[in-house]
Amino acid sequence: MRVHAYAAPAAAEPLTPTVIERRDVGPGDVLIRIEYAGICHSDIHTVNGDWGRQPYPLVPGHEIVGIVAEVGADVTRHRVGDRVGVGCMVDSCGECANCRGGDEQYCVEGMVPTYAGVDRDGTVTQGGYSTHVVVDAGFVLSVPEGIDPAAATPLLCAGITTYSPLRRWGAGPGKRVAVVGLGGLGHLAVKLAHAMGAEVTVLSQSLKKREDGLRLGADHYHATGDPGTFERLAGRFDLIVNTVSAAIDVDAHLGLLAVDGTLVNVGAPGEPLSLNVFSLLKYRRNYAGSMIGGIAETQEMLDFCAAHGIGAEIEVIPAERINDAYERVLASDVRYRFVIDAATFG
Amino acid sequence: MRVHAYAAPAAAEPLTPTVIERRDVGPGDVLIRIEYAGICHSDIHTVNGDWGRQPYPLVPGHEIVGIVAEVGADVTRHRVGDRVGVGCMVDSCGECANCRGGDEQYCVEGMVPTYAGVDRDGTVTQGGYSTHVVVDAGFVLSVPEGIDPAAATPLLCAGITTYSPLRRWGAGPGKRVAVVGLGGLGHLAVKLAHAMGAEVTVLSQSLKKREDGLRLGADHYHATGDPGTFERLAGRFDLIVNTVSAAIDVDAHLGLLAVDGTLVNVGAPGEPLSLNVFSLLKYRRNYAGSMIGGIAETQEMLDFCAAHGIGAEIEVIPAERINDAYERVLASDVRYRFVIDAATFG
Repeated sequence: MRVHAYAAPAAAEPLTPTVIERRDVGPGDVLIRIEYAGICHSDIHTVNGDWGRQPYPLVPGHEIVGIVAEVGADVTRHRVGDRVGVGCMVDSCGECANCRGGDEQYCVEGMVPTYAGVDRDGTVTQGGYSTHVVVDAGFVLSVPEGIDPAAATPLLCAGITTYSPLRRWGAGPGKRVAVVGLGGLGHLAVKLAHAMGAEVTVLSQSLKKREDGLRLGADHYHATGDPGTFERLAGRFDLIVNTVSAAIDVDAHLGLLAVDGTLVNVGAPGEPLSLNVFSLLKYRRNYAGSMIGGIAETQEMLDFCAAHGIGAEIEVIPAERINDAYERVLASDVRYRFVIDAATFG
Repeated sequence: MRVHAYAAPAAAEPLTPTVIERRDVGPGDVLIRIEYAGICHSDIHTVNGDWGRQPYPLVPGHEIVGIVAEVGADVTRHRVGDRVGVGCMVDSCGECANCRGGDEQYCVEGMVPTYAGVDRDGTVTQGGYSTHVVVDAGFVLSVPEGIDPAAATPLLCAGITTYSPLRRWGAGPGKRVAVVGLGGLGHLAVKLAHAMGAEVTVLSQSLKKREDGLRLGADHYHATGDPGTFERLAGRFDLIVNTVSAAIDVDAHLGLLAVDGTLVNVGAPGEPLSLNVFSLLKYRRNYAGSMIGGIAETQEMLDFCAAHGIGAEIEVIPAERINDAYERVLASDVRYRFVIDAATFG
């Protein structure tokens, strides 16, 4: 099956319209007619080659929402006409302890990423900037009624990436949660932590987005550009979710944690960070990382978002504006996520 | 009350016999006739001035076991003739959230260390290298019958320092625990983790102490000097307790953790460490620190040790050999802890 898509022809080159092959629908597969594909910062890093050499031409996109167009003979979980989603993974071994434990993202064999990965048939996976995609039913999520499908799209990566650590480290009533950075991930972290019942603080470089932050559910908003912030908030938080991939002053941020508090990174700078272990010894603090979430947890997140009326704040664009959108993401000029209307792919 | 003690007259000078003043026994105080005082590596760091300027003359010693000689009018917790112990703290505010939560070591006002701290009356605290000490009853532990008092002495610092993170991060049946370094702290970590029911692995520079490690309760013993160790044991451990204060390769050690595993430092190198956040993102790993433990937890640890017949492996020395012992500790030439016979202080 040949389908329209947008691909990067080579590293750092603008994306252009193309036609790609999707595999035949196997017994366990689902064919999805894509409605929306989100633009994630990591799409840009990947196509630009920031994270190493990539197979080109490359179709990015790992935030996908659409309608089931066909299912394989063995598929019982999804039906033609259902609204479904696909996130950052399309397969994993299914047999290692991590897969069995619901952490497919940490598959010992390595999960198969939605694009630029090697699929079970040896071909390179191609992502969601496309009209259709074929995915193993086990990696297809149900998008519940009651979430706008375009606003639901970024939940498949940005949503689960922030939901998972918030749940794992107990965001809820009586907990003080800080979110570092108010971007694509951060704005969802604020909505989710607020819906979980936590007291939410945004820590952003400046106070520019303060009104937005409070409207999205934050109780407090502070500028990390003001060094006094780190003194005033010392020892205050149970959990800090750092959504900023650029290098931060880890010791300064650890200093904001209460006893047994955790600073968790959901992204990583390319270069190593410096850390003074005394920052951890004091107050028995933790520094952790978290990468997306498992499939069952992603479904739980979608159901949680539907129950709480949570979607991303989005700007829907046609495919021809992808390259402009990339420039604007790099300039932090989006509130808060671009979503491509897949009807415009071709 | 004037008592015999050994003090460092100035930074990096040998300890010499002296006489110091102990405060009168207040209504809430306990006077202890010291039987044994342990030598902790941090005594040496402190008297040498490695951790900043200190008040001299300075009497070190924060592993103390002795017999209650007198109690204040308000003391009900201890009686004359009881065997008791004192660890790294002798007071805290008692009112902050951390003190109320049983974490006096993380007192927001700062706990009062057993030596080189400022006591409630404004005087400088002097430690256990002495014949007697006066301590607030709330910071005096009961040493249960059935532990040899000399072997119990190192439990007051080395014991609680390793017991607390083992408990906090769930060492027990079905858990794979690694202990980095087989010294004063490490040898107790092995005994404790084994008694808790965990599968215990020692990670030591070489295999020199392998027989000891296995005798103390380790199931496995590997040399970190062999780079192949890090490949073979990748993703294996639920918890790694790092008892080595020197800088380690954090990323290499994090690579040994399974999903949700924690590397916990109980000491810290003076200089900052380098850390690649990808080491945390993979497998949702944690890097944490832990500093001794609270008073109630220290009592729990002593009771646990009595129930499981756990004491430190010690070499008892007279006071006149303290300076030799310091040299030997610095050369790692002790298996595994020096304990000073307090009857020899004067």
